[in-house]
Amino acid sequence: MAQTCPVMDLSREVSLACGRARVASRVLATLPREAKDAALAAIARGLMDEAPRVLAANRADLEAARSAGLASAMLDRLALDPGRIAAMAEAVRQIAAQDDPVGQIIEAVTRPNGLRVTRVRVPIGVIAMIYEARPNVTVEASALCLKAGNAVVLRGGSEAERSNAALARLVGDALDASGLPRDAVHVLPFTDRDAVRALVQSDVDLAIPRGGEALIRFVTEHARVPVVQHYKGVCHLYVDAGADVAMATRLAVNGKLSRPGVCNALECLLVDAADAARLLPPIARALLEGGCELRGCERTRAILPDARPATDEDWGREFLDKILAVRVVDGLGGALVHVSRYGSGHTEAICTRQADHAERWRRVVDAACVVVNASTRFHDGGELGLGAELGIATSRLHWRGPMGTVALTTMKWVVEGDGQIRG
Amino acid sequence: MAQTCPVMDLSREVSLACGRARVASRVLATLPREAKDAALAAIARGLMDEAPRVLAANRADLEAARSAGLASAMLDRLALDPGRIAAMAEAVRQIAAQDDPVGQIIEAVTRPNGLRVTRVRVPIGVIAMIYEARPNVTVEASALCLKAGNAVVLRGGSEAERSNAALARLVGDALDASGLPRDAVHVLPFTDRDAVRALVQSDVDLAIPRGGEALIRFVTEHARVPVVQHYKGVCHLYVDAGADVAMATRLAVNGKLSRPGVCNALECLLVDAADAARLLPPIARALLEGGCELRGCERTRAILPDARPATDEDWGREFLDKILAVRVVDGLGGALVHVSRYGSGHTEAICTRQADHAERWRRVVDAACVVVNASTRFHDGGELGLGAELGIATSRLHWRGPMGTVALTTMKWVVEGDGQIRG
Repeated sequence: MAQTCPVMDLSREVSLACGRARVASRVLATLPREAKDAALAAIARGLMDEAPRVLAANRADLEAARSAGLASAMLDRLALDPGRIAAMAEAVRQIAAQDDPVGQIIEAVTRPNGLRVTRVRVPIGVIAMIYEARPNVTVEASALCLKAGNAVVLRGGSEAERSNAALARLVGDALDASGLPRDAVHVLPFTDRDAVRALVQSDVDLAIPRGGEALIRFVTEHARVPVVQHYKGVCHLYVDAGADVAMATRLAVNGKLSRPGVCNALECLLVDAADAARLLPPIARALLEGGCELRGCERTRAILPDARPATDEDWGREFLDKILAVRVVDGLGGALVHVSRYGSGHTEAICTRQADHAERWRRVVDAACVVVNASTRFHDGGELGLGAELGIATSRLHWRGPMGTVALTTMKWVVEGDGQIRG
Repeated sequence: MAQTCPVMDLSREVSLACGRARVASRVLATLPREAKDAALAAIARGLMDEAPRVLAANRADLEAARSAGLASAMLDRLALDPGRIAAMAEAVRQIAAQDDPVGQIIEAVTRPNGLRVTRVRVPIGVIAMIYEARPNVTVEASALCLKAGNAVVLRGGSEAERSNAALARLVGDALDASGLPRDAVHVLPFTDRDAVRALVQSDVDLAIPRGGEALIRFVTEHARVPVVQHYKGVCHLYVDAGADVAMATRLAVNGKLSRPGVCNALECLLVDAADAARLLPPIARALLEGGCELRGCERTRAILPDARPATDEDWGREFLDKILAVRVVDGLGGALVHVSRYGSGHTEAICTRQADHAERWRRVVDAACVVVNASTRFHDGGELGLGAELGIATSRLHWRGPMGTVALTTMKWVVEGDGQIRG
């Protein structure tokens, strides 16, 4: 089914799709929320009505993926079932129920000369979404972009090509039926790297890559437009001397084992040398009971002789599995150095009883999300109160952390007067 | 004085400077405001103390520029005098007096599970500033970056090389004397395009080009980091049917003639055909009395036969001079189409008595600043209440409009709990 075509044709096709998305974005930008919400409701209904067709397309994708020998984790991400489709529809309905970010006033001030100055949220325009595997991203990213008044051009992975095409068709039909421009959501029929390059060099306003390191690097290298990356999460928990051992254990177990395959899962435990003999054994016991493999530094292994020795590659590594690196560090300073060197700027947690240590962690650690006495797993749009999200941004600009609808807007200044001129 | 060296050495030099700036940025990020403000005060004092040396360097730049045949507008931008140096020192003192954006809470919420979730402003990190001509940018950009806790690497134009080197030395000495890392502000000794390319492909967090179109395009094309552009201002004023002719005249004259050479100056006047016969003659008279040349469309020239005919190149053109393009359009719709086609996304104003037209202008016009019944000249950091600014961003992300200290920050999420885990 994958279309192959010369690069020139592909560039032209991508550029045409982006041009049509640009025109659609102008329409979307000025729509009242009711019109956008009605379209989202139509998409949710379409998902339920068209479920059999989507599932059939997905079965074909799965079959091809199995023949191609895809890993089972990948197959799991790719697979749809009636429950997953219902969950997508529910996510779309929840996005519709959220506040419309467009037109929200960020700041308002009246100047001494009487000018009323406001900064208001406006849509970004055309967003390029580049992702892999999960077909639900096709629907949820489209819904979030639409809610924020943006058009979106999506390039999914080849393994989900048939599923994405079926989803794109029902989204397009829902837009048509709601009187919104069908071009507002466009799933590119090309899934190779040339399509990615053409897309991020087209007239779009923002590129959002979400996926493996190679994909993100490729986008960053070739983009001529702003890029917000959704990169890996190498999340740490530092357990401070004097910490409540029950709390530390709970945070380590929840961070590592509640869902090891996600980006906010814990990958490395740091423990203060001054208190490691007390803290490490009970924490390790609970982790081992949960089926976790521990890879420790030498000082860790002096306390936990059964831990496997950690190699240099284990620091800064995203295991995405029931494996945890463990390192004994010299106090808060040692933990800060480790995190600064090996962290991925995603989520970094401390477990401490000392207010000044918590304050230093909050201030010094440079990550999208800094956590004090809670699980790293809370770094998530739903948990932080945003609702659905497009992913967790690990870039520094234009947004960090969970990208909900507000993250898909920019701003403009509005100046209103009664004929004022500048002196 | 210009150093020439092989590109490889240059890349290494630029990369080393950025590396040192990165280390300095980590120190700056956690400084209390007192430490930053003290350094800014030292820079202001240094400017006054070192004025003779800076002026001598500037005279040498001016002499070289004159021999090279630079245009007089360029020479004026380049020239320093004691008054301009005092103005720089005053700008730095005002930046010191502003609130510290770092640590400001953007949003705070307590979740049902008791987690306290805040988004706080943090420095961006290392900023690359690429600019031309005006030496005051060297000082003001450095002061703004420092106030927001960022390190900055600056690449100025070759014509200001000696002035910038003298300013860089005094800024460095002031940092030294205040106990701040000298590497926090680095003026590259290379001024050619290779230096620009090396800089925007280095480990910096944001590139800010400010200058001519060619420079900005070059940066956008080669950057591997986010870019916030400071592009030209092709600002329009649309005068609606029924508008107060005195107000319209005032706004046109102030917009075009109060300072024709700046980016928020008016470049094109649009008038509703339904009322052009009443509106155009008095507006034109006032502009002509102010020494302005008018270039009109055919419908304009039917009313103002003395106006020079406008050519296609006059629409969307930044004259930066006492020249104004004038076009009769078919109502608000015609004005919106013209602005969407020819505007540069900088500042777009309407003069109207109709609330619904004002509302449509505010909502539909896509520009960094949308103005109703006031002069385009108000689109300026000082006038909008921000204080000093680094320039007017015409990019859509990560900021639009005047870039003050807040625009030089990003954010992080802080999650604080009492041992909460995710269910």
